Amino acid sequence: MSETFTPSAETTARRSERASLDREAAYAVLDEGLVAHVGFVLDGSPFVIPMAYGRDGDRLLLHASVAARLTRALSDGAPVCVTVTLLDGLVLARSQFHHSMNYRSVVIVGKAERISDRDEAAEALVRLVDHIVPGRSAETRPGNRVELRQTAVIAVPLETASLKVRSGPPLDDEEDVASGGWAGVIPLTLTAGEPIDSPDADGSPPPPSVTRYGRRDRP
Amino acid sequence: MSETFTPSAETTARRSERASLDREAAYAVLDEGLVAHVGFVLDGSPFVIPMAYGRDGDRLLLHASVAARLTRALSDGAPVCVTVTLLDGLVLARSQFHHSMNYRSVVIVGKAERISDRDEAAEALVRLVDHIVPGRSAETRPGNRVELRQTAVIAVPLETASLKVRSGPPLDDEEDVASGGWAGVIPLTLTAGEPIDSPDADGSPPPPSVTRYGRRDRP
Repeated sequence: MSETFTPSAETTARRSERASLDREAAYAVLDEGLVAHVGFVLDGSPFVIPMAYGRDGDRLLLHASVAARLTRALSDGAPVCVTVTLLDGLVLARSQFHHSMNYRSVVIVGKAERISDRDEAAEALVRLVDHIVPGRSAETRPGNRVELRQTAVIAVPLETASLKVRSGPPLDDEEDVASGGWAGVIPLTLTAGEPIDSPDADGSPPPPSVTRYGRRDRP
Repeated sequence: MSETFTPSAETTARRSERASLDREAAYAVLDEGLVAHVGFVLDGSPFVIPMAYGRDGDRLLLHASVAARLTRALSDGAPVCVTVTLLDGLVLARSQFHHSMNYRSVVIVGKAERISDRDEAAEALVRLVDHIVPGRSAETRPGNRVELRQTAVIAVPLETASLKVRSGPPLDDEEDVASGGWAGVIPLTLTAGEPIDSPDADGSPPPPSVTRYGRRDRP
């Protein structure tokens, strides 16, 4: 597998300084993100739905109820776009025009592939759980036959994709810098709070995956 | 303007307990969010791009470079889907099947309307700045003629939309609750850090919009 993605007209951003085809950097964004925005076409119109996801090597994994319209829209071979965005900060310039955001974003285009093999689908669902909280699958009951039958698992090959990154301070025009006034960045972080026990919990303490998660993500 | 959105096949979610057409609640989500995922169709394929946005009453505002392919894709009358998602927590059940996320999400479908009137476009861009940080426009230089000419402003009417909300603890099956073990929620918050001065700043203190912003968003 190539270390860079296949460029395409769709994923070659015009503002090339923000675009990259580096596979490792894109995977780091995918592994850090929690929600993907999945785009598909229905009767010629676009739809964008937030979904949990996972990654298995060079493919992205999605899942949905077998009965969902989404599942029919993402049938084998349907064109799909999966975008994962991490927001890192608000970029506040002296001019309104140069206001921006710092972010890292991966846009994947490809065709949906329904995973029909039962064992492969079950394994994909374990990866989806471990994507939410690493190590969580080992602490929980795996899907049973009925649950697996209700769940469609969809893979999107990580072949045609692009990474866009904006970081650093605002870039004002010289005249605006000379006029003075504050400019800078407000950093933003997705922060994990203290775990909240379920009301029907039996008093067991949070398991390792949960206590670790909190420590990793808090500033 | 109706207090509820027009339902449509696209925005009437099957899991109706999570779907709502309440306009006020949906606007609260749009006003809290910072990034929209904008879906459009190009040559029959879907694309999803993260964008800053704003709201002006009953329409959503987007902007892009006049030269961008995106701007051509969002030409007058093009079908567009704008989705804003706020992630509130990770829902960790005893069964892998019932793992989920707490979130609030608004999905808007409509047709793009290019704002061609110069004054109206300028006003929309001010709203985009104030959406990032309320009050910021009063502290900054407005767009000049050249900047405005470079910027396409696109409105999407907030007519056909849906709000989906998942909140609260995991909902495990009785047998799994009886088997015991921890279950619960890890809350997630987008947290603003201390403002970072631009390296070319003149030592002015952060203005009111910036100091206020930090206080509002920190836990």
